[in-house]
Amino acid sequence: MASSSSSSSSEHRNPELRKDAVSNRWVIFSPARAKRPSDFKSKSPTDSSNPNQHCPFCIGHEHECAPEIFRVPPDNPDWKLRVIQNLYPALSRDLQLQDPSANASAWALAGFGFHDVVIETPVHSVQLSDLSPDEIGEVFIAYIKRIKQVASHQAIKYVQVFKNHGASAGASMSHSHSQMLALPIIPPNVSARLESMKDYFDQTGKCCICESQSGNLLINSSSYFVSLVPFAASFPFEIWIVPKYHSAHFHELDAEKAVDLGGLLKLMLRKMSLQLNNPPFNFMIHTSPLHSNGSELAYTHWYIQIVPQLIGLAGFEIGTGCYINPVFPEDAAKVLREVNVPE
Amino acid sequence: MASSSSSSSSEHRNPELRKDAVSNRWVIFSPARAKRPSDFKSKSPTDSSNPNQHCPFCIGHEHECAPEIFRVPPDNPDWKLRVIQNLYPALSRDLQLQDPSANASAWALAGFGFHDVVIETPVHSVQLSDLSPDEIGEVFIAYIKRIKQVASHQAIKYVQVFKNHGASAGASMSHSHSQMLALPIIPPNVSARLESMKDYFDQTGKCCICESQSGNLLINSSSYFVSLVPFAASFPFEIWIVPKYHSAHFHELDAEKAVDLGGLLKLMLRKMSLQLNNPPFNFMIHTSPLHSNGSELAYTHWYIQIVPQLIGLAGFEIGTGCYINPVFPEDAAKVLREVNVPE
Repeated sequence: MASSSSSSSSEHRNPELRKDAVSNRWVIFSPARAKRPSDFKSKSPTDSSNPNQHCPFCIGHEHECAPEIFRVPPDNPDWKLRVIQNLYPALSRDLQLQDPSANASAWALAGFGFHDVVIETPVHSVQLSDLSPDEIGEVFIAYIKRIKQVASHQAIKYVQVFKNHGASAGASMSHSHSQMLALPIIPPNVSARLESMKDYFDQTGKCCICESQSGNLLINSSSYFVSLVPFAASFPFEIWIVPKYHSAHFHELDAEKAVDLGGLLKLMLRKMSLQLNNPPFNFMIHTSPLHSNGSELAYTHWYIQIVPQLIGLAGFEIGTGCYINPVFPEDAAKVLREVNVPE
Repeated sequence: MASSSSSSSSEHRNPELRKDAVSNRWVIFSPARAKRPSDFKSKSPTDSSNPNQHCPFCIGHEHECAPEIFRVPPDNPDWKLRVIQNLYPALSRDLQLQDPSANASAWALAGFGFHDVVIETPVHSVQLSDLSPDEIGEVFIAYIKRIKQVASHQAIKYVQVFKNHGASAGASMSHSHSQMLALPIIPPNVSARLESMKDYFDQTGKCCICESQSGNLLINSSSYFVSLVPFAASFPFEIWIVPKYHSAHFHELDAEKAVDLGGLLKLMLRKMSLQLNNPPFNFMIHTSPLHSNGSELAYTHWYIQIVPQLIGLAGFEIGTGCYINPVFPEDAAKVLREVNVPE
């Protein structure tokens, strides 16, 4: 990829357009609108530590939640995490599915799917980044167990795992949790990503995510993973955590690698919180469709995208699908590399 | 299109997925998460009427703005609208352009383009919906004049006209204005739209927007335009204003039709404000690339998309590009049809 083609000086730089090889989207980098990269701070830091708030996700309130799917450890009242149904699911697990591929002219289908919640800790005041690498690893293993369960339904095509942290990032509950939405379709961004990564592979014989793991965009690394700012990041201080090894599916992760990933995710969340004033954020696990064909496996590569919510979307972005990012990726990577994280 | 395939009852409906023929995107309709359609109200209504605020867009403060491009009427200190450069442009009009098509492996290009502001009224407390249909028509004619000016640059491929109303919809200035960003690329959503509309045309011989103008999704109509809620609206109470006649380019609009459009836009903005508690909103004019080839003209059709900001985007939407809309389009259309607008 073209990361070496851009300069690394941060002052008085001209705007530049960059194309992301993964999404095939142009992003406008426009530092003229911005303060210095190191001056970016959230104006609405997340406060989710109110211990007096009544919360059905807290230990002892299990009866106030929608049905449980499983807990860790199993059958233990002193649980460490729980996977439950979403009380207000976007899709229904009780619907008869119409297969969209059965009718090429179908513009609508029944909203069949699974919408689950992963309660990451029994304690209200504990955030994901407060957990140990081992404990975060257990959260990943819970995602994987649930993905494998829903994958037994042939109608489920893709599972989106995501976390909303902070009300302005979409979290309706402040107790630390993530969500899993198992879909009867391949979502538009996933189709576009597969197509773009296939084009790159057809042209170069290489996986574009395997290719992106060097240079001035790197932040940190662990045994099996690297964290980086993508060359054409859509959002300021967007972070990707990428397996160093080629792997199409997140759910192929084993327990050892899950702990290693837990350590790097914890480091990135702590750096983001320290540098950007505990911003609301989202993370998304980008993986491959459940029933991938063999050729897809060669050019798709799963990763985690972390997006701190520092600037809103407006008419230009909604209209064009093109983002304006005020911070050049190499500047964001430098700032994040240099954050000093207390032990 | 498939608007007739869905039921029209609003209570206790199951979730449904619908595909938008224009964008080729699936949207999840999930009423279980929602209140009744008529209960949707903005929690952060826009207040932009503070007359004491110092504002460079107000008449008499022209010297505090970036350079003017033109005003209406010309050379008149008592102007009705002004088109000026954006003081913080996302793209630079002074850069040498690299043609991306000159190098197929190019992942970056200079940020050449024009980012302009249309000040829609000299008076701070006047909103776009306060203007007369004639005056709104003059705003459209100003957009068109400026589009034709930038179209003389062969490097400019597309002009995105958009309006952000209210701080949470991205407006940094409360004085009523819109923006125009002339781009050296075709933005991703535009490419996707052209491809999807071409597919529809190839399959049916028809323009999918010409086809969408009937049934229970209509809100209102004027001599030359209809307003409707799209069959697979991404956002609750999203409104499209569509020319009844087939037309690829917004800038083909003539003065008579501009006034007619002004009347219908005014009606939609007033209905939205009354029904939804003066919400922050965006509108975007979706048109065709400037240098369209002849075959594109047959299947592309410009329209205005109006999006009230009632719910935020979160990890699921960022990750998948798939939206969850809690209000079925036919319910939103019914509510908007029935809003009583005082004379």
